[in-house]
Amino acid sequence: MEITSLTNAKVKQWSKYKEKKHRDKDHKFLIEGEHLIEEAHKANLIECILIEQGKENMFPIYETYEVTRDILKKLSDSVSGTYIMAVCHMPNISSIDFGNKVIVLDDVQDPGNVGTIIRTAFSFGYTSIVLSSHSVDVYNEKVIRSTQGALFHMPIIRGDIMELLQELKQQGITLYATSLHEATPLQQTPKKTPCALIFGNEGNGVSKDVIDYSDHKVFIEMKTFDSLNVAVAAGICMYEFR
Amino acid sequence: MEITSLTNAKVKQWSKYKEKKHRDKDHKFLIEGEHLIEEAHKANLIECILIEQGKENMFPIYETYEVTRDILKKLSDSVSGTYIMAVCHMPNISSIDFGNKVIVLDDVQDPGNVGTIIRTAFSFGYTSIVLSSHSVDVYNEKVIRSTQGALFHMPIIRGDIMELLQELKQQGITLYATSLHEATPLQQTPKKTPCALIFGNEGNGVSKDVIDYSDHKVFIEMKTFDSLNVAVAAGICMYEFR
Repeated sequence: MEITSLTNAKVKQWSKYKEKKHRDKDHKFLIEGEHLIEEAHKANLIECILIEQGKENMFPIYETYEVTRDILKKLSDSVSGTYIMAVCHMPNISSIDFGNKVIVLDDVQDPGNVGTIIRTAFSFGYTSIVLSSHSVDVYNEKVIRSTQGALFHMPIIRGDIMELLQELKQQGITLYATSLHEATPLQQTPKKTPCALIFGNEGNGVSKDVIDYSDHKVFIEMKTFDSLNVAVAAGICMYEFR
Repeated sequence: MEITSLTNAKVKQWSKYKEKKHRDKDHKFLIEGEHLIEEAHKANLIECILIEQGKENMFPIYETYEVTRDILKKLSDSVSGTYIMAVCHMPNISSIDFGNKVIVLDDVQDPGNVGTIIRTAFSFGYTSIVLSSHSVDVYNEKVIRSTQGALFHMPIIRGDIMELLQELKQQGITLYATSLHEATPLQQTPKKTPCALIFGNEGNGVSKDVIDYSDHKVFIEMKTFDSLNVAVAAGICMYEFR
């Protein structure tokens, strides 16, 4: 099917998915570029494909709309533009299964950091991502891009962080919070499985309540500057606990 | 001194420093925000301060221009805006002293990645950053912001990468290149000092010539996805070699 009008009802509907509230309401989100579409295809999340008129469609098994470059520009968030996008549905999480290696993000705000952490977690075989209510939305286009598609393969559980930590503890999962105070150096920390590694907000770190509730406090020893990006700190901890 | 006109000669001159060629020509660059100015002050790089009219100047020891919000908006790269900026001069590197723990970036392109790597390097006590000619310019505003000021304290050496690697080898520094092929797992790699750790372009990794010239090839073992952001990979290697 071909769509050329920017005011077409479908285009209007899709463009709503640039906002979190509409994504949440319909459980749908947009992605762009071949690589992400390939990963979403593997995870069975694609609903339909939007492709620029005249371009070859590598995913003909899905319902496809041929659209103008202007329509893609309206729907896309990237500066450089794209010739292919997809509308996806969010994966169903019927029951909470954390698995035995959990990453917990306590109000991490930067989309690039959250996406990079999800990508690292999937690469090292972590089993789920838990997000506090005030963390950035993972279906934000920049988060998706930074995950390189890892997002589609990882269970994401979002909610009240204290309730979720309680649930983790009840399931016998040891909680490790990163903290700069009264903490054990990462290398000397005994690494148990199942475990949950907790990382905090870019400015404030892990919140006090969460640190107090955790079983262990961990820090990464530094020399001169004592300042690591949260995605780098998370990468180092995930590597050590892998 | 007060400046209110966007077409003032000084404003025109400063705004040129948003482009690499003018930064390189005059050896000057712009920074914004208190935290970076504090770090540039410690490193003795500040030439003058630009502050919004009516705001308190925490750095009165420097020549100061009171400017309008519009002038700051013109000079700044940040979306949220700033009330204080500084014009800085680049540090003088009279002789090449790599130190004993070197980071080499082979055409790393993303400003956020390069900035984050410099921040991590300084935090773990690395002694210099070597950049290939086609790496992103480190005086790019986004790089500076991502370094959190670490840039001002690290010697940065930029040039032909093969010549610089030759120089490193001649000084007895062992070269470790990250590579996905025929490489030793990071954990099993014997870690010598002095060393140089080499990281590559986001899409293509370290170039073949550089890998062939290196003493060791190293890779980070992953499980499911085999994909790490270069700043995360660099963080993990720097931690292991710290």
